[in-house]
Order: sequence, then structure tokens, then C-alpha cells
Amino acid sequence: MINKLVDKIKKTNAPVVVGLDPMLKYIPEHIKKAAFSQYGETLEGAAEAVWQFNKAIVDCIYDIVPAVKPQVAMYEQFGVPGMSAFKKTVDYCKQKDLVVIGDVKRGDIGSTSEAYAVAHLGKVTVGNTKISAFDEDFATVNPYLGSDGINPFLKVCQEEKKGIFILVKTSNPSSGEFQDRIIDGRPLYEWVGEKVNEWASQCMGDQYSYVGAVVGATYPEMGKILRKVMPKSYILVPGYGAQGGKAEDLVHFFNQDGLGAIVNSSRGIIAAYTKKEYSRFGETGFADASRQAAIDMINDINSALK
Amino acid sequence: MINKLVDKIKKTNAPVVVGLDPMLKYIPEHIKKAAFSQYGETLEGAAEAVWQFNKAIVDCIYDIVPAVKPQVAMYEQFGVPGMSAFKKTVDYCKQKDLVVIGDVKRGDIGSTSEAYAVAHLGKVTVGNTKISAFDEDFATVNPYLGSDGINPFLKVCQEEKKGIFILVKTSNPSSGEFQDRIIDGRPLYEWVGEKVNEWASQCMGDQYSYVGAVVGATYPEMGKILRKVMPKSYILVPGYGAQGGKAEDLVHFFNQDGLGAIVNSSRGIIAAYTKKEYSRFGETGFADASRQAAIDMINDINSALK
Repeated sequence: MINKLVDKIKKTNAPVVVGLDPMLKYIPEHIKKAAFSQYGETLEGAAEAVWQFNKAIVDCIYDIVPAVKPQVAMYEQFGVPGMSAFKKTVDYCKQKDLVVIGDVKRGDIGSTSEAYAVAHLGKVTVGNTKISAFDEDFATVNPYLGSDGINPFLKVCQEEKKGIFILVKTSNPSSGEFQDRIIDGRPLYEWVGEKVNEWASQCMGDQYSYVGAVVGATYPEMGKILRKVMPKSYILVPGYGAQGGKAEDLVHFFNQDGLGAIVNSSRGIIAAYTKKEYSRFGETGFADASRQAAIDMINDINSALK
Repeated sequence: MINKLVDKIKKTNAPVVVGLDPMLKYIPEHIKKAAFSQYGETLEGAAEAVWQFNKAIVDCIYDIVPAVKPQVAMYEQFGVPGMSAFKKTVDYCKQKDLVVIGDVKRGDIGSTSEAYAVAHLGKVTVGNTKISAFDEDFATVNPYLGSDGINPFLKVCQEEKKGIFILVKTSNPSSGEFQDRIIDGRPLYEWVGEKVNEWASQCMGDQYSYVGAVVGATYPEMGKILRKVMPKSYILVPGYGAQGGKAEDLVHFFNQDGLGAIVNSSRGIIAAYTKKEYSRFGETGFADASRQAAIDMINDINSALK
């Protein structure tokens, strides 16, 4: 799947992933109204609104970006109907040939970690039948529990030719509380990065590994170092736009081959119509506003990379 | 909810939580057969088997233990139907007046962390209606992202009088890869423990805080230290039994008041009928075997605590 991701990034010339994190407050009134009139102000109603919102956006961006990253928390908050909307979204995006990165940040140990890996990337055995559950192409994973948490994911990645992005240095202001603490002269995130590199070497695709890393755009200097620590890992870069990461900062996350990083934007794209610069699209033109915001983001990043 | 947990522990005289981690291989054939004959070898069939299995066990243990801990990964692997079985299990346990600890180990930042907190402990707003999604009493949370990940949970805990257990030192063999690394002379888990203590002081119940910690039974010496670092936090202790933690090791996790820790067993109880010592119950007596295993565990721990 990393090969497919790299191919699609080259073809679209867009090292960009659109975060499908549909908070209800970003969803235009007419969509919510239609959903609530059918299902009421219920979890089902919310899930329907989320799904219709996603579908419209995906229809407007699938040909210009290589990948999407649904954030499962935004679906999980609507309970079982929300998880249904997550699954529908994953399936629809794959149908549109988008690479789907499930932003699930799961992390546990042994058979539990295996169950998460199976849930999101693999197939579960029921009697004599093997069945996919959520079936994303990549999942994000938390490293705090060490190899016992990661190994079951590696096994599934090898079997299914799928991938993971392991949290190394996250984009949030307080990420330093633990991640930046100095151990034997180097910050924890570097040690995690080294382990990622080790895990990555066990799951190589053609040019890049099936094992990638998450490093926030808000920490470009750390990105520079981590880029060298994990040369074979794709870096998933959150924090561009809304969180303050700028295009010129992103250079450090890429390798000399112009590859090696994929930059996420969520609100900046899916809620573009709420921003002044895209207000001309209006609320009913929200999906077209998303397309324009995605184009602008691609151009912004590509100019900086030149 | 921490007050209720403490009360129930006192009343049952059982500092024990039963992990509801129903892997299909632990579920007796007759239950699977009935479920598959109704739904086929499908995710629905698996979810039905899980639910029937859980229900029978809960019916046999609800009066002798204070709490259960469903591990969401084991449900998530069966996709949307699996999450339905999770929800049914949570609801049923609460109906039986058990305290429900959702072992979800979620961890993200800002609005995403808020969505997880809402999903598992709070209420989501849909239009003008507030609705519970999964509605556990406690959730487990991963600290790797720092305060930005924890604060949204604290807010929901304060609003809903619910609680969290933050991963500090996990029970698995490789937990030391990152958690034991030395920072300014002390291991990372101690620094995390100190933050837990800080967060705990913001959410006090009567005697104990709504903010607890996870510390593995497999590391009793570290438990001893962490007990002192976080005096007001309940410690959720996994790793007893199947993972090698022994009753005599557990003493260190309790405070002088005989409170302060709750010990989990999953396989050791729900799959007791597969073990030689409980084989007399037979496969159809699996739930009675679970009850006996729970009684034996309670006695084992209470003897050690004397």
C-alpha cells in the first residue's frame, strides 16, 4: 500500500492528505436539516449528516489528492451509528481509489494489539471465514507500550501489504511534556524515531517502508532531525494550517527525492467554506470550496518545495 | 463514579475487575453454533456469540465483583456489529449495577481528544439534543501526547462525575522500551505518574480522585514507588494471573487503608472453563466456572492483603 501511496502522490503531484474529521459544527445547515428530518436529532441523524457531508467532499477532491485520513474519534462520538458512517466513508473512499489512512491512534499489547490490527487493517476469522472489519489501508498507532504493541501491527502489515504511521512527535503544544524529555542526551521522540526506523526496515516496500511516522508540522527543526533518523519512513505531517504549520517549514520533512512526507489538512479543507477566503462558495458550495482549498494547499506546498 | 467504585469494592470486599475480552476461541462451541446458525459466519454472528457469552458471565459474577472492564479492541475487530455488542455489554453491565471501565486506551489532542471523551464518558450534542454514545463509567487513556490529550477527558470527568485510568507503567514485557528510560535520574513512568498525580488533584472524589492510573502487576517494585507518587489515584492493575502477576506482589499497589487498587483478570476468569482446575464445570458450565474463578481470585488477593 505504501507503493500505491507513493505512486498516487507522484501522479497527483500532491503530497497531501485530506483529514475527514467532520464535526457537526462544520456541516452545513441544509445537510443537517435533511438528516435530522429523516432520523431526528439522534445518533443516526448525526451519522447520516456526517456521511452525506463526507460523500460530497470526497466527490469533489478524489481526483486531485492521493489520500484521505478519517479521524475515527469524530465518528466514535456518535456511537454505533457513527462507526457505521466511518465504515461507509472508508468504503466509499476506497471505491474512489483514494488511499485511506485510519487515524485511530490505537495502542495496546499482545492479543489486544492484534485485535486492533485486525480491526483496522486485517481480516478477522469467524468460524472458517475471514472477514474484513473496517479495512483501512493505513492506521496510526501509539508507541507508548513498546514493541509488544507494534509487532502485531507489523505482522498484519506484512500479510496484507498495508501500513502504519507511528506517533513520534505530535503537533500539539504539550507534546513536549513527555516526548521531548532527554534520555541519554537525546529526546524521547528521537529514541522512538530510531525504533520506528528499526520496525520500518522489517516491512519495506519498493522505495519506502510500510511503517511510517507522525511528526507535527509545528516542529520543523525536530522534523529535520527525524527525517534523517527514519530515512525509509514516510512521514505523515499534521498541523499544517489551522494548527500553525507553514509550507516553508515542511521542506524539512521531505527527502532529496521530493518524497517521504504527506501533509494533512482537516478543517482547512473540509470547513473551507466557513473561512473568509472561500466565502464566495457559500454554504451550499461547501464541497467546491473544499476542492479549491485543496488546490491552494497543493500549490502552496509545491511552491515551497521547489 | 470513583465514590461508587470505592463503595462497591468495600461492599463486595473484592478489589477485583473482570476483563470482558471475549476472543472467539474462548467462547464455547454451543454458543458459537447458535449464533452462526442464526447469522452465519459473519461479523453479526461473531458479535451475537460475544454478546451471549458476556451476558451469561455477567449474570454469574455481577453480585460478587464491583466492576467489569470490556476491552474494546475485542469488539472493534468485529466491525460495526462488534461495536454494537460492546454497547449492549456496557448497557447490560450498568443495568446490573456494575461499574464499567471501558478499556479503550484512547489518546489524541484537542477537539479529537474531546470527541473520544464524549464518545466514552460524556454526551454528544446533536442539534439541541444531548445523547450518550458508549457511556462507560471510566475509560483508560494513553498519556503520550501530554496534557492536550488529557485535559478534555478531565473536563468531561468533572461534568459527568466519571473517571479515567491513565497508562503509567503497562504490564507487558516490552513496556520498558520507552516507559523505563531515565530522564533526569528517574524513569519516564515516574514522570508520567507525577503528572497523573497533578491531574488527579483537579478531580477529587471523597477519598480518591476520578483520575487513576494503570500499573502492571508484573512490575511490583515500580508499583511500590508509583503508589507513593500518586497517593490519591486508584491504580488499575492488569497482569495478574495469565501474564504472571502474583497475589503477594499486589500488596504494593494498595494504600494503608486497604484501598487504592483494583486488580484485573480477563482470561483467567472468562476462560476459566478451559483450564484444568475448572474443567469439572464443562463447556456448558463456563459461566459457573467464571464465578468460581472470580471467587478464588478474590480469596487469593484478600489472603495476600491480610
